[in-house]
Amino acid sequence: MSPPRTQPEDRRPPPARRPGGRTARVRAQVLDAVRAELGEHGFDGLTMDAVAVRAGVHRATVYRRWGDVGGLLADVLDAAGDDDWRPPDTGSLERDLAGLNQEIQDAMAARPPIMAALIAASFRSERAAAAQRRLWEDRYARCEIVVERAVARGELPPGVDARRLLITATAPLYHRLVLLGTPPDPDLPGDAARTAVLAASAGAFTP
Amino acid sequence: MSPPRTQPEDRRPPPARRPGGRTARVRAQVLDAVRAELGEHGFDGLTMDAVAVRAGVHRATVYRRWGDVGGLLADVLDAAGDDDWRPPDTGSLERDLAGLNQEIQDAMAARPPIMAALIAASFRSERAAAAQRRLWEDRYARCEIVVERAVARGELPPGVDARRLLITATAPLYHRLVLLGTPPDPDLPGDAARTAVLAASAGAFTP
Repeated sequence: MSPPRTQPEDRRPPPARRPGGRTARVRAQVLDAVRAELGEHGFDGLTMDAVAVRAGVHRATVYRRWGDVGGLLADVLDAAGDDDWRPPDTGSLERDLAGLNQEIQDAMAARPPIMAALIAASFRSERAAAAQRRLWEDRYARCEIVVERAVARGELPPGVDARRLLITATAPLYHRLVLLGTPPDPDLPGDAARTAVLAASAGAFTP
Repeated sequence: MSPPRTQPEDRRPPPARRPGGRTARVRAQVLDAVRAELGEHGFDGLTMDAVAVRAGVHRATVYRRWGDVGGLLADVLDAAGDDDWRPPDTGSLERDLAGLNQEIQDAMAARPPIMAALIAASFRSERAAAAQRRLWEDRYARCEIVVERAVARGELPPGVDARRLLITATAPLYHRLVLLGTPPDPDLPGDAARTAVLAASAGAFTP
């Protein structure tokens, strides 16, 4: 859901400029290294030692603070949710949902495939899986305003189950791209958005 | 999509009664062992040696024929598609789709969690992932008759994109149960079926 900030930073500011002091600086360096290693090598190539070397941080610090690779991934996912992302606000429910779906498809197709690698990694580590679910929960919660605005504009009746509508709009993207492994389809974001809006207009998400 | 025959066989017939001679018998014993090991230990506990021991087959045979754990999983998935499964035929599109979704939810909730473990394993092995996609493709192809029958009954206009309708009906199940990790919801199979039918009736899958 939405491209969380999981891209490696191309122009990483010098560590000294990281806000929050040494602890925050070390965390930022380590998480940047995790994203870069994950993008280059995937989960199977991700090791605590490689992350420590790439981050320029003592191995002992990485082990003590993150425990294992699952802990590193969980922290990357938690950090991804620590942003000010907001869903599209185009004045139309269908366009908002299509824009949201386009962001999902773009994030899944991005190279290096950080988002895809994080989702795959969540099948390897219970800590990463829990963090991935927290991130999705947060993203869906932030997206509910898309539905609330549509109700306020009179596009939908009050009482619409926003979460079910949002899942209906986005699930085909995740199902096709993550599970079925179909290549990105330029029509898919808009088609799935339109389908959800038609279903909503027909009363699918109203008690 | 649908519960493929991935359950370990509780009352396995004696090997000598397996049809197809020794090669088929060995395959059946090995795949039963893979399902049982996967159900008990998940992917991380699945080893070639444990499968060989459990199946009562020489290690060398297992390595020669399946190569690695990914090869074993791919063959389990290919074997799952080698059945005569057909989607529900209730006389109503919505009930057919709800029944299909119920089968998916039941399979995902089954204990031991063979289907869930196979999906998770498809993130670990490219061979397993390709086999999982073949199985889904086969299942969705078999389900298209559900839509064709609805068109024949006059429930839907001709020209409906059956695959898009089927993905819309089933994707929320996979998204919630596999990715979002929400517990099975007794309303979900029917709600997702109804949503897809309402969208179809509103023209979502017609050019």
